Amino acid sequence: MIEYRTLRVALLGGGSVGSQVAEQLLTHRDELAARIGADIELVGVAVRDLDAPRDTAIPRELLTVDAPSLIVGADIVVELMGGIEPARTLILQALSSGADVVTANKALLATHGPELFEAAGQVGAQLYYEAAVGGAIPIIRPLRDSLAGDRVQRILGIVNGTTNFILDRMDAHGESMQQALATATALGYAEADPTADVGGYDAAQKAAILASLAFHTLVPAEAVYREGITDVTLDQVVAARKAGYVVKLLAICERLTDPVTGVDGVSARVHPALIPLTHPLAAVHGANNAVFVEAESAGPLMFYGAGAGGIQTASAVLGDVVSAARRHVVGGPGVAESTHADLPVLPITAVRTRYQIALLVADEPGVLAAIATLFQSHGVSVETVQQSVVARDALSAPHTASTATLVIGTHEATEADLAATVAALTTSSAVHSVTSVLRVEGL
Amino acid sequence: MIEYRTLRVALLGGGSVGSQVAEQLLTHRDELAARIGADIELVGVAVRDLDAPRDTAIPRELLTVDAPSLIVGADIVVELMGGIEPARTLILQALSSGADVVTANKALLATHGPELFEAAGQVGAQLYYEAAVGGAIPIIRPLRDSLAGDRVQRILGIVNGTTNFILDRMDAHGESMQQALATATALGYAEADPTADVGGYDAAQKAAILASLAFHTLVPAEAVYREGITDVTLDQVVAARKAGYVVKLLAICERLTDPVTGVDGVSARVHPALIPLTHPLAAVHGANNAVFVEAESAGPLMFYGAGAGGIQTASAVLGDVVSAARRHVVGGPGVAESTHADLPVLPITAVRTRYQIALLVADEPGVLAAIATLFQSHGVSVETVQQSVVARDALSAPHTASTATLVIGTHEATEADLAATVAALTTSSAVHSVTSVLRVEGL
Repeated sequence: MIEYRTLRVALLGGGSVGSQVAEQLLTHRDELAARIGADIELVGVAVRDLDAPRDTAIPRELLTVDAPSLIVGADIVVELMGGIEPARTLILQALSSGADVVTANKALLATHGPELFEAAGQVGAQLYYEAAVGGAIPIIRPLRDSLAGDRVQRILGIVNGTTNFILDRMDAHGESMQQALATATALGYAEADPTADVGGYDAAQKAAILASLAFHTLVPAEAVYREGITDVTLDQVVAARKAGYVVKLLAICERLTDPVTGVDGVSARVHPALIPLTHPLAAVHGANNAVFVEAESAGPLMFYGAGAGGIQTASAVLGDVVSAARRHVVGGPGVAESTHADLPVLPITAVRTRYQIALLVADEPGVLAAIATLFQSHGVSVETVQQSVVARDALSAPHTASTATLVIGTHEATEADLAATVAALTTSSAVHSVTSVLRVEGL
Repeated sequence: MIEYRTLRVALLGGGSVGSQVAEQLLTHRDELAARIGADIELVGVAVRDLDAPRDTAIPRELLTVDAPSLIVGADIVVELMGGIEPARTLILQALSSGADVVTANKALLATHGPELFEAAGQVGAQLYYEAAVGGAIPIIRPLRDSLAGDRVQRILGIVNGTTNFILDRMDAHGESMQQALATATALGYAEADPTADVGGYDAAQKAAILASLAFHTLVPAEAVYREGITDVTLDQVVAARKAGYVVKLLAICERLTDPVTGVDGVSARVHPALIPLTHPLAAVHGANNAVFVEAESAGPLMFYGAGAGGIQTASAVLGDVVSAARRHVVGGPGVAESTHADLPVLPITAVRTRYQIALLVADEPGVLAAIATLFQSHGVSVETVQQSVVARDALSAPHTASTATLVIGTHEATEADLAATVAALTTSSAVHSVTSVLRVEGL
């Protein structure tokens, strides 16, 4: 029997992820010790309510409501409480005592990341957060280490399982947004208040974390442009598939040059977008996540897997615990997060992308020419036009007699030019209504 | 201007990967220094022929034919020569001098891995090899670190770009094996002597590396069961697609229990296999690679990208160089490779999988019953039977009058039972010939 040094692990939070982490630390203790070269002792689990029901049984004697005392003397602190406070204060306490910290707290990282990384750097501690983005999918470590010698150009991520589940239901089962959301809620994929997911807030926090890491630049969550999926209609999803696309909520992080100012910078945004059915991200179904990374040398890479779930997220947390434990065995200070590139974070107006715009128009000669001229006069170049005379929308609209639907695909245009074009379309006498405006990504 | 400590990097090999690594170390020196917190100085590139043509210009004064002298005093040695010797001797020299080593040499790792890891462990040096499997795709680090707290159950990998390109040409363009190989050669995807690729040797080396890492067990390349793709016919590929499958050369690593002895162990094998068109691996086209990992907690994960190419592989090498450099900045010994689990490596006869078997039979009453009985008597359970009376193969066969093709899908069976069944089929009077035997994976 080999005698191992013992490392003390304090767990903050006994929810669905926390209880899985506790169970696995307890049941796989011997195997983990052999893998690490040190014994991992779970010294306690801080919870709000000692008597709350849990997914797995945590021995009663490990439970405590006193998180600050639990941290004292811990080598590794695992924070799975979520939210800003008291998580922030407890993590700062842990780091200042020299403990390494493992967290899955994307909200905290996206808003207070720099403060936490600085606190870690001051004492040579390490902050691990593989579980904060993409659940079990290893994405933080590949971006941070594997691609550290490359230059990431762009990230397209499906990073929110709830919204991907909803959009996939609409696409695969023809459900409306309301129906799909109800299905997601019934199956446990959506929370009672789904705002954080369907509003794109969760995805925006993850976009901030990915962009900061990929571009070595501080990108706070507030700097991420954000649109949720609540305005996506079944008509849009059906029309997209007919045209060879699927609608996904994407987190997009990219290097770009502001077309107005000429400034080189980075941009992070979250919004629904059309992606071609041939793109690897189009095959990401249900509540799965995937992150598509384009790097200068490596070319396109994709990382795919379960984006959430207690046991899946626990896998990522335990990987971080093992990394932290190995670092304790080996010694030496942690590697500081690098924001050396410090690129400006550009607003959404600096982004150029393609658009697909659906219009209800009068089915008369000269209308197409008028609309084409309108696009051109606003600096937006039209690439494709598709017309269907029996408009789906027209069935319930007052224009049944002489109405057509035009679907216009544009070349790359700026958000500003596109917005001006849409405003002009809305007031044009040739246009009954603008029924859909979607960005096109992944071409 | 920050003053950085300088780390000396010696590069062994100036081929397609080596020259890309050299160029990027030189052109991105400032950016890498900011990222690492140390300056990376390329002190020289050891080559066989100073005057050989190179993909990128390496300054003449950096070139040398004296690899052993170049290693002296280096902090990091990057070995990109390939082959066993002199690579092995030079890596051992580098490690024994305390240098960290980065290598992409899968052949060497698969045959002399333990010797190299032991040499590294003795001096606390680190051996990095992200580029040895999957080109630019981060797979070593996710298996080694991200999944270190989980338990990998199975890996299905498309790890050889040449064979995937050939099989994809057959599937997508209807080319024969010969035509597809010729296309691959013409486009530079296959070497003049394609044996290492089409014979499955390259994939078997990668399977050995993946299995060793995933199962914490030494799996040498010789222990990997190996079949190449040379016997795969266009008929098989066409029939597979009709039935909802695609033929891929898979590297399969799994935990399993020997059905005869009851011994728990691991298995690694490389062979062509049918996978369902709905499986994520089915969408891996051209020369791309992908590794599908099933872990106990994380569930299914997939890592996808370019599996080869000088610049892509250079990305993985540079990621390792940055990791090695950061380790030098931080200090402390390297993390030793762990083979603590030390599970027995089971032979192919311990594997149970599904099969699809195509037979040319007499189109007569009673034949199906006779064949079903034959399967049953050898312990192989039939799941599906498809019959087509106008057999494609029959056109050129002497049985045109009364011949049918039977495609039989089995439940899971052992290799031994299946082999006995096929032998019996071959000598059965009801069977004209066995035209195809393929394993089915990914169900």
